[in-house]
Amino acid sequence: MAASGDEIETLIATMARLPGLGPRSARRVVLHLIRRRTGQMAQLASLMASVAENARECLVCGNVTGSDICPICTDPARATGEICVVTEVADLWALERGRAFRGRYHVLGGSLSALDEIGPDDLRIPQLLERLSDERITEVILALSATVEGQTTAHYIAEALAPSGVAVTGLAQGVPIGGELDYLDDGTITAALRARRKL
Amino acid sequence: MAASGDEIETLIATMARLPGLGPRSARRVVLHLIRRRTGQMAQLASLMASVAENARECLVCGNVTGSDICPICTDPARATGEICVVTEVADLWALERGRAFRGRYHVLGGSLSALDEIGPDDLRIPQLLERLSDERITEVILALSATVEGQTTAHYIAEALAPSGVAVTGLAQGVPIGGELDYLDDGTITAALRARRKL
Repeated sequence: MAASGDEIETLIATMARLPGLGPRSARRVVLHLIRRRTGQMAQLASLMASVAENARECLVCGNVTGSDICPICTDPARATGEICVVTEVADLWALERGRAFRGRYHVLGGSLSALDEIGPDDLRIPQLLERLSDERITEVILALSATVEGQTTAHYIAEALAPSGVAVTGLAQGVPIGGELDYLDDGTITAALRARRKL
Repeated sequence: MAASGDEIETLIATMARLPGLGPRSARRVVLHLIRRRTGQMAQLASLMASVAENARECLVCGNVTGSDICPICTDPARATGEICVVTEVADLWALERGRAFRGRYHVLGGSLSALDEIGPDDLRIPQLLERLSDERITEVILALSATVEGQTTAHYIAEALAPSGVAVTGLAQGVPIGGELDYLDDGTITAALRARRKL
């Protein structure tokens, strides 16, 4: 028999399985929500129920949003002819927070991986090629991770796009802003040195 | 305009204010729940709504549970005459996980603090004294934190209980199980040395 009753215990166990949380932090969150008698838990519950009902993938780019086509794909100001290809929705949101890119996105939904048997058709690569013929695209920016899988995926897409004649670019590699050389890994320092530029 | 739509953004902002979470982990949790098309978010939402509706403080001990009297206070096997006094519900749950104590609890709801203007009547100390006359109590175990506030509270309660003649005890202080001396603070080592016992 649980000290707190079965329902509270089930809620804690469910929350403990969420990424980044564990049993301890789940207990803390649940106690916090119960203790605040401001109805915060009921409010959070109804918000989650509503998101669970409405959240879906944008039919064009794969962004997660509350409508069939996401706010970025419906915004005419963002039809710049540039598509930024990202691995996951989280990457799209990260780029949006930076406010540096004003074109549109394409979410792959993963990386190519021979080990995990993820091929081009398991990702949204065919949809990307379709967009190239449907929309007036001049540049595809591959904002993929600097990992083996990310770079394999980037090479595959670059080759698939070669016949179309569209410009294919990738993110610059180098020293992160605020990064101290002493704390950087050798790979980053080597890449930054190779890609050195005139001041 | 948020990349993800306003409702998802509100959910992320609400979750980011929970203890132990921040904007980054809130985004991760929300994306995880949206991505898993197993209805996990709807399930979590309804669980939270139900807990928000039903969770309340046990009228006897202050434990948080789904009923007026908690499972521990209604269990006749736990009428051992021992009351374990804890600061918060989280402490009660921690002790229950240890399974070492088979009596009942009393949750104070905080510690005495002159700075924060928390006096005895702001905590559940009057209710503790009432229980002493209502129930057959032989021992009160003060399982309070080894902080200044915790020990102030413990001393206050010990003095308030003195006239009743009930035994008042506190948790032992010393080296934690698995603790390496080298990594312990001086206060703990000093306390463990002072309270040394014959082997």
